[in-house]
Amino acid sequence: MIGELPNVQAGMEFSTRRLAHEAGVHRPLQAGICGTKKKGAESIVVSGGYKDDEDFGDVIVYTGHGGQDGRGNQVSNQTLDDTGNAALVTSCLEGLPVRVLRGAHDGSAYAPSDGYRYDGLYRVTSYGSKQGLDGFLIWQFRMEAYEGTPTPQVQPEEVIPAPGMLPVDHEADQQPAGNEQPGRVTSTVQRIVRSNAVKRKVKEWHDNRCQVCDLRIELLGGSYSEGAHIQALGSPHNGPDTTSNVLCLCPNCHVMFDAGAIVLKDDLTVVRAGKAKGPLRTHSKHTIDLDCVKAHRERWRG
Amino acid sequence: MIGELPNVQAGMEFSTRRLAHEAGVHRPLQAGICGTKKKGAESIVVSGGYKDDEDFGDVIVYTGHGGQDGRGNQVSNQTLDDTGNAALVTSCLEGLPVRVLRGAHDGSAYAPSDGYRYDGLYRVTSYGSKQGLDGFLIWQFRMEAYEGTPTPQVQPEEVIPAPGMLPVDHEADQQPAGNEQPGRVTSTVQRIVRSNAVKRKVKEWHDNRCQVCDLRIELLGGSYSEGAHIQALGSPHNGPDTTSNVLCLCPNCHVMFDAGAIVLKDDLTVVRAGKAKGPLRTHSKHTIDLDCVKAHRERWRG
Repeated sequence: MIGELPNVQAGMEFSTRRLAHEAGVHRPLQAGICGTKKKGAESIVVSGGYKDDEDFGDVIVYTGHGGQDGRGNQVSNQTLDDTGNAALVTSCLEGLPVRVLRGAHDGSAYAPSDGYRYDGLYRVTSYGSKQGLDGFLIWQFRMEAYEGTPTPQVQPEEVIPAPGMLPVDHEADQQPAGNEQPGRVTSTVQRIVRSNAVKRKVKEWHDNRCQVCDLRIELLGGSYSEGAHIQALGSPHNGPDTTSNVLCLCPNCHVMFDAGAIVLKDDLTVVRAGKAKGPLRTHSKHTIDLDCVKAHRERWRG
Repeated sequence: MIGELPNVQAGMEFSTRRLAHEAGVHRPLQAGICGTKKKGAESIVVSGGYKDDEDFGDVIVYTGHGGQDGRGNQVSNQTLDDTGNAALVTSCLEGLPVRVLRGAHDGSAYAPSDGYRYDGLYRVTSYGSKQGLDGFLIWQFRMEAYEGTPTPQVQPEEVIPAPGMLPVDHEADQQPAGNEQPGRVTSTVQRIVRSNAVKRKVKEWHDNRCQVCDLRIELLGGSYSEGAHIQALGSPHNGPDTTSNVLCLCPNCHVMFDAGAIVLKDDLTVVRAGKAKGPLRTHSKHTIDLDCVKAHRERWRG
C-alpha cells in the first residue's frame, strides 16, 4: 500500500520494528526500503545505518541500499539495480508518496529518543550518486515532507531556519544577483505530478510513450511520461478522473495540450497550432471519452 | 511587486480600494487585474463584478477582463489580448504568485461582510474559455491558494469538504474504477515551477528556446520554457541559485537533465544517453559555471 494508512497518524510511536511491521507502516523487518521498481517505494526507515545520511527534519538526504559489510561500513559501490534503490527512483519519477519511519540514533536531531516513530509522507525530489565517506560510490535521494506532514520536534541544540515565501521583484531590469548559498525557499524546482491509479494504468498501457509525438523519454532506471487529463478536473472544467479522460503524454505535449496548443478532433486527429498532424496513437484497452475531447477543444475556441 | 508584501499579512482589511491601493496590495483603483503580459499579474480583486465567477475559498474560478457594458452585463467576447487576461496567462505559464483581494458582495460565501480583505497568494493553475451566462465568450482562470495561505472564514450556510490525501493502492491489477466526480484532492496535475528572477533572466536571454534541443514551445498567449538548475539546489547537491547555474530548457530536456540522461562535458558538448550530440546553445551574456557542470556530471557517474 502506497500512501497514508487509514489508522496510522504521523507522530505515532512504535517501540520495535516488529510493531511498525504489524501496523503496516514498514513491512520488512530488516531492509530499510520497502518497495519494488515496478510499484515504487512504500516506506523507508531512517535510523542511522548509513553515515552519509543527512536529516533536516522536513528534508532528508537518504542514502540508498547496498555495499555495506555487516558493521555499517561501505565496502563496495551501490547501484540503481538494487531493488530498494530502483523503488525510490520510481517514486521520484512517478511523484509517489513514501512513508518515513525514524528510528532512535545519534546522527539526527529529529530522531526519536527511543524506538521508532512514523513521521508521515515524503516525496523523492531528486537523486544522484557521489563518493561516500568510506570512499565508495553511493546513491542519495532527497526526500521532502509533503505539505501537511508535520516537521518532527527537534531535540535541543539545533536551530532550523523557518521557510518563507520571498517576494519576487520584477521591476529591476539589471541582471539578478542570485544567491551563492540559497536558503531552503528556492531549493527545488518541483514537478509535482500527483500520480494515481488512473494515470498509472494509462501510462502502463502506452508503456510511457507519448500518444501525440510517440516519444518515450528514457532515463537511467526507467522511462518517463505524464498522465494528462483531457477535460481538466475541478471547476470550471469539471472533467471525470477516469482512464477515458486521461492521455499518456511527454511533458512537452502535456504543456501544449493543457494550454490548448494541441487539441483533438472527434476522430482523434491531433491538431497542433491549428494544423492537422495525423491520428492520436491509441491502445485497444484505452477508450477515449469523446465528450471530454469536445469539452477540451471548446475550452480553447476563444 | 510580485508576491507577498513585507508589511501586509493575509486577513488584513481595507475599508476602501484606495486604502488597498496605498498599501500596495492592489494598485489600480478601477481595474480588477493588476499586471502586464511581460511581468505577469501582481494582484486581482474578487468583488462580484463578473457573474460567472465561482468562489470555493481556496479555489477561485476568476473571470477575465473585458466585454462588459457599464452595468455588469457581458456585451461582447473577451480575448487574451486584453492586458489583464494576458498577465494572468503569464502568471500561469511562469508559476508566479498572485495576491488576491476579496471585496464585499453577495456572490461568495468567502467575501468579507464589508470593504476589502487581502487573502494571500494564489497561483493560476489553468485557464480556458467558455460561453458565459450572458451568451458571450469569456476566459476563466482557476486560482488555487498556496500552501500557507489561510482559507478565509466562510459566512454561515456553506460547508466545504476537507481536502485529504487518498491512499493509492497499487496491489490491484484490474482496471481502476476511477471517479466520475472526483473530489478536490485529485483535482489538478500541478506543474509548480517556482519561478524567480534568476530563472526569468535566463529564459529571457534565450527567448524560451531550449538550449539543448532548440525547441520553443508556442502557446496561445506566449511561449514556454523552464529554468533548470545545473547543479541542483539543496542537500546533497548544494548548487548556487545564480544565472551561471541555470539553463533554459524545454520540459522534456529538463526531465532528462534532472535525471542524468543528459549531461554536459566541460566544453559544453551535450551528451545524451552516452552519445555526444553537438554543442549547447549559448548566449553572450549567459556565462555557464563549469564547476556546476562538473558537479552535475559527477552526480550521474554511477
